[in-house]
Amino acid sequence: MIGGGQLARMMIPAAIELGVDIRVLAEAEGMSAAIAADRVGDYTDLDTVLAFARGVDVITFDHEHVPQDVLRALVDAGVAVRPGPDPLRFAQDKLLMRERLSELGLPVPDWARIETPAELDEFIAAHGGAAVVKTPRGGYDGKGVRVVRTAAEVAEWFVAASEDGRDGALLVEELVDFRRELAQMVARRPSGEIVAWPLVETVQVGGVCSEVIAPAPHSAGRMSDVAAEIAFAVAEGLEVTGVMAVELFETTDERILINELAMRPHNSGHWSMDGATTGQFEQHLRAVLDLPLGGTGTHADWSVMVNVLGGPVEGSLADRYAAALEQHPTVKLHNYGKAPRPGRKVGHVTAIGDDLDAVVYEARAAAAAFQD
Amino acid sequence: MIGGGQLARMMIPAAIELGVDIRVLAEAEGMSAAIAADRVGDYTDLDTVLAFARGVDVITFDHEHVPQDVLRALVDAGVAVRPGPDPLRFAQDKLLMRERLSELGLPVPDWARIETPAELDEFIAAHGGAAVVKTPRGGYDGKGVRVVRTAAEVAEWFVAASEDGRDGALLVEELVDFRRELAQMVARRPSGEIVAWPLVETVQVGGVCSEVIAPAPHSAGRMSDVAAEIAFAVAEGLEVTGVMAVELFETTDERILINELAMRPHNSGHWSMDGATTGQFEQHLRAVLDLPLGGTGTHADWSVMVNVLGGPVEGSLADRYAAALEQHPTVKLHNYGKAPRPGRKVGHVTAIGDDLDAVVYEARAAAAAFQD
Repeated sequence: MIGGGQLARMMIPAAIELGVDIRVLAEAEGMSAAIAADRVGDYTDLDTVLAFARGVDVITFDHEHVPQDVLRALVDAGVAVRPGPDPLRFAQDKLLMRERLSELGLPVPDWARIETPAELDEFIAAHGGAAVVKTPRGGYDGKGVRVVRTAAEVAEWFVAASEDGRDGALLVEELVDFRRELAQMVARRPSGEIVAWPLVETVQVGGVCSEVIAPAPHSAGRMSDVAAEIAFAVAEGLEVTGVMAVELFETTDERILINELAMRPHNSGHWSMDGATTGQFEQHLRAVLDLPLGGTGTHADWSVMVNVLGGPVEGSLADRYAAALEQHPTVKLHNYGKAPRPGRKVGHVTAIGDDLDAVVYEARAAAAAFQD
Repeated sequence: MIGGGQLARMMIPAAIELGVDIRVLAEAEGMSAAIAADRVGDYTDLDTVLAFARGVDVITFDHEHVPQDVLRALVDAGVAVRPGPDPLRFAQDKLLMRERLSELGLPVPDWARIETPAELDEFIAAHGGAAVVKTPRGGYDGKGVRVVRTAAEVAEWFVAASEDGRDGALLVEELVDFRRELAQMVARRPSGEIVAWPLVETVQVGGVCSEVIAPAPHSAGRMSDVAAEIAFAVAEGLEVTGVMAVELFETTDERILINELAMRPHNSGHWSMDGATTGQFEQHLRAVLDLPLGGTGTHADWSVMVNVLGGPVEGSLADRYAAALEQHPTVKLHNYGKAPRPGRKVGHVTAIGDDLDAVVYEARAAAAAFQD
């Protein structure tokens, strides 16, 4: 696994139980996944990545930032890279993603490739006076995304885009009038087998996921069928292997539009570790190893995951254990082993049960017990 | 954790999720828990164990074989040892255990301390012509236990017992006419909090656990209440900290008698990893760290665990994955990372659900898929 963050960390328990020898190429010492860090190095350096790859059967990822030239050199060297460079291009570049999804006839917000402020202002005028501008690459957790009413608000983005050695284009999308955000997690193996977990509702605060409800309330029937069809079409159309999250908008006029893709385990799937027969980390391992996929049924009617964002202002998460674990004996805590810092994802909690109100209350209260 | 076997291995995922830094003193390189092996050394060597202990806050165990003098030296050096030397004495020496449980007024099979063949023959004559002889120390998985009809059958055990530098005594017990075997798992923390999982039925083949059904069928009500009371009394009477298994006989005349104690996670509790809110490995960590204990409710009406004993005659468990995982997508596999060998516990599977017959069938079929 390339990358030593919390996704790599949570892959380790799944690997241990499944009997898979997992090794991590970490960016630095002491990261979340340090216990399995085989080596520390720069994932943009081909020699470092090739040396790491020589010791493993399959390469997969904690993030989508490994450069295309490194990915393609791995493939040329005979390494199994999953997901491969072709699908990863679409997770790395939002303009390419929008183009490809449109080609596939999948529902996306109205969008355009823009190279000048004039083009942006024209798009804004044609879309009710506001739009969402995105840098095609490098954004995450709300970074690289801005709602604008005039091109002047992102003047510096045009400058940066034209200076980064690529083609200087930005992505602009309609400001979708959405009722809520949803996410559909699926897993696909190279041989083609594909499975879906239940459609979930995700709650974002300031561009960062704060809460996930599985399944999404009031989604049974047509809505969940449509979401699964969309995610299957994306996974098959882009030949994704491993776990993938398709982030969706449910519009006020009851359409479902694709927002973003993540070709790896994703925050919107953390609930599955405690709420489903097969958690997303075990499933990702099965998928990238081309093993049969596990069942995606649930343990209870409802699972609610709440992120621990920031953690205590002073001290560590562990300082809160005595009180938090006593008050919430049925909540599952996942501590990422990271130092608290405002806004940082340092852990998450999951509650499950058959009464949604009670489960939401319990998960939120438990997460709050680890924060100030 | 002292000892690098499968119990240490299965503690690692729980430690990662709970944010506990776990280090293992393994007996050899390449053991089940190698990923967390901080060092390799002899757990009977005080200097080795003391050096290991210097780097940790709490010492706990994968097995009960650390000598008393080493345990007491750790305590004298200020190390938190959980469970401590006092309770561990009773898990290490079956004669001491029987004496103490009898003092506590707890139900045990009729037993005696014997030092001569004549005493054994006398006990046999008084108990219907048969008895069970046990070496007080060192037995496990049926080793050191023999059903006899005359003292001559264990003549060499008396010689060995008198030569081992201790007092030469053996334990003899009545051959209990039991309907089935049960096990009650509990967890107790130093501050006194104590919880129980549901009473389970265990099936032994040739002295080795082959299958566990949780909860034990037809045990609701009086029987499970009695079992929990017994286990609580043992844990409190012996001041056990951590997880403890009390193995029980259900007699044909509907009494419950204590068979053996294990003061650590135990095969009879493996089902809890997939079938309960808190698995025994997470609970053991909470208990030995004196953290609040987790809920012991279940995900489904029934959980059935079946051991994978031996594994394939040729090749590895992984060679069976393609077929076994495809046929059993809802079964959870735990691979101990050990080379297959006849009779060896190399893994286990757990199935859960609300139809006992279906769950038993599924778990047995999945385990069989990993064996010849």
